[in-house]
Amino acid sequence: MNSTQNIYDVIVVGTGIAGLSAGMYCGRFNLKTIVIGEMPGGIITTTHLVENYPGILSMEGIEMGTVFLEHAKKFGAELEFSKVTEIEKKSGKFLVKTASKEFTGKTVIFATGTHHKKLGVPGEKEFNAKGVSYCALCDASFFKDKTVCVVGGGDSSAVETLILAKNCKKVYMFVRKDVLRAEPINYKKIMESPNIEVRFKTEIAEIKGKSKVESVVLKSGEEIPMEGVFVAVGWTPVSELAGKLGVELDGAGQVKIDRNSQTNVPGFFAAGDVCDSAFKQAITSAAEAVTASYFAHQYISKNEA
Amino acid sequence: MNSTQNIYDVIVVGTGIAGLSAGMYCGRFNLKTIVIGEMPGGIITTTHLVENYPGILSMEGIEMGTVFLEHAKKFGAELEFSKVTEIEKKSGKFLVKTASKEFTGKTVIFATGTHHKKLGVPGEKEFNAKGVSYCALCDASFFKDKTVCVVGGGDSSAVETLILAKNCKKVYMFVRKDVLRAEPINYKKIMESPNIEVRFKTEIAEIKGKSKVESVVLKSGEEIPMEGVFVAVGWTPVSELAGKLGVELDGAGQVKIDRNSQTNVPGFFAAGDVCDSAFKQAITSAAEAVTASYFAHQYISKNEA
Repeated sequence: MNSTQNIYDVIVVGTGIAGLSAGMYCGRFNLKTIVIGEMPGGIITTTHLVENYPGILSMEGIEMGTVFLEHAKKFGAELEFSKVTEIEKKSGKFLVKTASKEFTGKTVIFATGTHHKKLGVPGEKEFNAKGVSYCALCDASFFKDKTVCVVGGGDSSAVETLILAKNCKKVYMFVRKDVLRAEPINYKKIMESPNIEVRFKTEIAEIKGKSKVESVVLKSGEEIPMEGVFVAVGWTPVSELAGKLGVELDGAGQVKIDRNSQTNVPGFFAAGDVCDSAFKQAITSAAEAVTASYFAHQYISKNEA
Repeated sequence: MNSTQNIYDVIVVGTGIAGLSAGMYCGRFNLKTIVIGEMPGGIITTTHLVENYPGILSMEGIEMGTVFLEHAKKFGAELEFSKVTEIEKKSGKFLVKTASKEFTGKTVIFATGTHHKKLGVPGEKEFNAKGVSYCALCDASFFKDKTVCVVGGGDSSAVETLILAKNCKKVYMFVRKDVLRAEPINYKKIMESPNIEVRFKTEIAEIKGKSKVESVVLKSGEEIPMEGVFVAVGWTPVSELAGKLGVELDGAGQVKIDRNSQTNVPGFFAAGDVCDSAFKQAITSAAEAVTASYFAHQYISKNEA
């Protein structure tokens, strides 16, 4: 295991919108900064069009990831694309490890984001990438003129449904509760789409097929022929490494931060989807990261004064 | 006085980054929204280049104002460019008045920003726009090859100094305390500029001249020939109308908000520079506005359920 000689002022964990915004701002603060993560650009790169980031009228998700990477590099942040496997605190410094390297930092900005939740029904794992998908945008084109379903009742499932409705012959939307909690603009579009059928109080019991998905069986017992199952039942915060370090998490496993993006562990800040903010958007992630950068800078200045 | 028949879901007060971001997001939420303010685009339009808004690598301030205006219009927000003179709460609704019109709203998002602070010395008012300026970017070109001074010790005064140093023969920087609290990147540039002279523990006692500024007298008694005086001693939050309504302000007159951009007055939200956030940037203003929009939407949904 290689050990870097130099101590970083800030180690940012996560290479999505939050992590890269932190990298950019820490760079502007002349802080020696490295941003480490598995997915260059983060989850926004799986989004088709972003039209709700104030000041950017319309941009493809993949391009947005690229711009944020460039912005972080422009101000001198180093980038390292690998998975962080462990974070320790030792003598007031943070040790951040990947499979092959180890980095030491005075502060950490934790911006690991979220993972997709699973349905947990028979067939889901078996047919993963054989008809079962967690990203309509990524996979919609494989289901052209086919019959698919979206599972979930939130706004992101509504967005996935609308994306699929443009490609597919028919899109079922299976909502567990009796309400669809979509943004009004998306709700309206769904209700007006002739090839979308919303079924409330409906859950999948099993996904069936041979080499790929052929049908779903509902809890009611009804079996519906189906070529694709898009799971959009929410997200799990990727907060395990923070939790192990003693960072306080809320009941949903989200990292608790205050208005200054500070956690309960001194020198350990957090930003973005992994945090306990009530409304999570790209813009709020970026702002939390910028705030974290400022307070990381303050923390270092104070400790070295 | 004309009274509009319709009730707005959201009245946004302020047409800067925060106000326009709120207009855009409220529009996306299908809320009937009007954004009212005096200065289209807000204070960012007086900035030369913006390079620290995550996702926008480099953009002129004036262009940024235009993009935000367009973004708000794109999603259906109405715009009204006039000064709001009064806000009342009556029977659970908000009355927002300008000199000639009156608007009724279910909620308000207050995003009025800040005004420049004055020095309060003899000559300052007399020579306003005759050598005394509060915006280096706006006025730097009038002082080409001249000798000017910047008053202030924060990062924005550092930025103003650097802008002026590109145009002027010589730039004095008068800092009241013995420390220059500039971003490190700006601090370095100032210290390396041959035509910038930083004087610590220095205050202006008087600005003198005939038809325009000719010199400044320091508190030490020293008189220095000077053609321009750029005042950059901070900002006052434009919070008076909120205060009158019973919205809680902090000691500096800033509107107190929580992480959900809520004030103590139900239905009254705030965002941007007028608020009590510790680190104020365009990106944090936009995020506060987006959060305010979400909770205004929640507030309306709940009240009408």
